[in-house]
Amino acid sequence: MEDIKRTEIASLGEFGLIKHLTRHLELKNSSSLKGVGDDAAVLSYPEKQILVTTDLLLEGIHFDLTYVPLKHLGYKSAVVNFSDIYAMNGQPRQITVSLGVSKRFSVEDMEEFYAGLRLACEVYGVDIVGGDTSASLTGLTISITCIGEGDKERIVYRNGAKENDLICVSGDFGAAYMGLQLLEREKRVFAGESDFTPAFEGREYLLERQLKPEARKDIVAELAKHNIVPTAMMDVSDGLSSELLHICDQSGTGCRIYEERIPIDYQTAVMAEEFNMNLITAALNGGEDYELLFTVPLTCHDEVVTLPGVRVIGHVTSPALGAYLITRDGAEIALKAQGWNSLGSENGEKV
Amino acid sequence: MEDIKRTEIASLGEFGLIKHLTRHLELKNSSSLKGVGDDAAVLSYPEKQILVTTDLLLEGIHFDLTYVPLKHLGYKSAVVNFSDIYAMNGQPRQITVSLGVSKRFSVEDMEEFYAGLRLACEVYGVDIVGGDTSASLTGLTISITCIGEGDKERIVYRNGAKENDLICVSGDFGAAYMGLQLLEREKRVFAGESDFTPAFEGREYLLERQLKPEARKDIVAELAKHNIVPTAMMDVSDGLSSELLHICDQSGTGCRIYEERIPIDYQTAVMAEEFNMNLITAALNGGEDYELLFTVPLTCHDEVVTLPGVRVIGHVTSPALGAYLITRDGAEIALKAQGWNSLGSENGEKV
Repeated sequence: MEDIKRTEIASLGEFGLIKHLTRHLELKNSSSLKGVGDDAAVLSYPEKQILVTTDLLLEGIHFDLTYVPLKHLGYKSAVVNFSDIYAMNGQPRQITVSLGVSKRFSVEDMEEFYAGLRLACEVYGVDIVGGDTSASLTGLTISITCIGEGDKERIVYRNGAKENDLICVSGDFGAAYMGLQLLEREKRVFAGESDFTPAFEGREYLLERQLKPEARKDIVAELAKHNIVPTAMMDVSDGLSSELLHICDQSGTGCRIYEERIPIDYQTAVMAEEFNMNLITAALNGGEDYELLFTVPLTCHDEVVTLPGVRVIGHVTSPALGAYLITRDGAEIALKAQGWNSLGSENGEKV
Repeated sequence: MEDIKRTEIASLGEFGLIKHLTRHLELKNSSSLKGVGDDAAVLSYPEKQILVTTDLLLEGIHFDLTYVPLKHLGYKSAVVNFSDIYAMNGQPRQITVSLGVSKRFSVEDMEEFYAGLRLACEVYGVDIVGGDTSASLTGLTISITCIGEGDKERIVYRNGAKENDLICVSGDFGAAYMGLQLLEREKRVFAGESDFTPAFEGREYLLERQLKPEARKDIVAELAKHNIVPTAMMDVSDGLSSELLHICDQSGTGCRIYEERIPIDYQTAVMAEEFNMNLITAALNGGEDYELLFTVPLTCHDEVVTLPGVRVIGHVTSPALGAYLITRDGAEIALKAQGWNSLGSENGEKV
C-alpha cells in the first residue's frame, strides 16, 4: 500500500471542509448570479423556462465504494442529473450538492469526490452554486439538484407521443448493467483471494458505462441542429422497457419495438453469454444506460436516421394494441416495468 | 397501544408509493408550469430573480424519531428551507423532495410525513414539484431543495452590512434548543420507567419551537410594507452568535450586541435555570431558532422599532473593533462561532 495522506474532517471543522471544497469554484454561466456562500444561490432566467431535477444517492443502495472510486462517483452523481435535463431537451446550468459524510471519510476522500464533480461540471458547462454538508452516522449520502434551461417551444415532455411516431434511442443498452455484474463478480472473487487481479481486459467499455457514464448533450445538440423537436423524450435510467412504458402511459399510446433493432454493444453480448444471461432482457431492463429515448413524427424519418448514434427501434401505436417487443422470430412479448425490487438493486425511482 | 394499520412499502412498490404520496398535489403558483411526473419540473420566472437553497436531514444526526412525530418532521423539513428563502428577502414558491426510506417505515408513516410537508406548503403558498424516493439501508434521509423568487433590487445578501447599521432580530432565541434539551431529558427518563408521563406542562412553547418551527414570512412582509430593504440578512439556524459572525465576516465589519437586548422567552429562562445552564449562551448558540437576523441603516431606526416582533440588539462597527457581546455589567465578551461539533449536535452547515 502506498502512503496515503489522511486528514480527519473533524480537524478542519465543517465550515472549514465546505470552504475548502468550494474554494476554487467559479461561475461561468450568465444565469448564475450568486453561488456558494449565502442562504440561497441567486439565478436569473428572464427568457427561458427553468428545469429542476433532483437525485438522492445512498451508499449501499446506489453505489458500492468497494469498487467505485470516489472521483468517478462524483462525476457520475453530476452526470445522472444532467441527463434528466437533456431528457427535457434542455441544458443543465447549475447544481447544488448536499453531502452526508461519516467519520470513515477523510478530507482527501471528499476532495476526490469533488474533483469528479468539478470535472463533470467543466465538461458539461455547469456551475456548482450551493451545498450543504453534514455528519452522517452511516456512510455517504449524496443529494444533487440540477437546474437547467429550455426554450418554451422546445421543452419535451413524456406525454406527447402520437400514434405512428417513430421510437428512437441513442447509444446502446445493457452495458452499464453488465459492467455492474462484472464488478460484483470480481468483488466476490476478490473476497476469497489474497493476490487477486481482476479480469477486466477487453471489458473496459462495460466498466466505463457503469463507472463513468456520460449524458447525451451531443444528441440534444444534433436534434437542435436539424431542427427536430421530439414529441416525447426521457433518459433511460431504470431500463429501456420501463421508460418506454412511462412514455406510453403518459402519452396514452401503445408501442412496438423490434428486438433486432435494439442497439447492443459487442462486449455486452459477450458478457451476457459468459454470465448465461438473456441478452435482450439485460438490454431492456438493465438500466443506468443514460441514453435518450424519444419519439419523432414519421415525417422526420429520413433526417433522424442520419443523426450519429441514433437508431429507430420501433413505432408508437394506438393504446389498444399494448406495448410489445417483436422478437427476431416474430413473437410478441409484452414489455414489463421493473419495480422497487428490480434486479435486486432497489435503485430509486424518480417521479 | 391502538391498532395502527401498517402497509409495507414493498406492497405498493416504489412507483406505487410515490404516485400514492403525490396523487393530490396541485400547482398553485403561476411560476410552476409542470410538477411531479417527468424527468424535471418546469418553472418560469421571467421577471424575478430565482433563489435556490437545499437542506439534507439525516436520521440520528438532525432528528430523533423517538420523540419527533413524522408529521412534524415533514412540516419542519419544509419550513427550514422556506426560512433560507425569506432570509434573502424572497418568497419560497417550489420544493423538490427526495426521501431515502428503510424497511422500518410503512406507507402510513410516509403519508404522515407528507401530510406535514403538504401542510407547510399550504401555509406558506409553496408547490411540491418533484421528488425522488429510494430504499435506504439505515433510517430516513430527507433532502429538500427550495426554489423561490425575489426582486433584483430587494434581494438581501450577507455581505452588505455597513458601519453604524442597526442589528435587528425577529422573535426570541434559545427556545428551540431548550425544547431539544427537554425532549432529550424525557427520553432518558422514559427509558428507565414503565409508566411514564413526560413533564411537558407549561413548556409547550419550547416544544413547539423545536418540533414545529415557523419561518418568518410575516417579517419579510412587514419589511416590504414599510419599504425597508435590510443591508444584510440571514436566518438563524446555527445560533445567533455564529450567524452574526458570518455577516461580519462577509461584510468586513465588526459588531456590538447587548445582552440585555437579546429577546428570550420566559419559558426558555425557566428551563435554563432548571438545567443549570447559562441562559445567554443557550440563546446565542442554541440554534434552530429560524428567526431573521438583519441589519438596517441607522436612519431606519424609528420605523424598524415599530415592526411587530422585531428588536434592535446592537450595531455594526468597523472591523478593527471585532465582534463582541456587551454584558449587563458592561463586560465585553468575544462572540464565538460554533463549529462542526457545536453543542454535540453535529448539525449540518450550509454554505
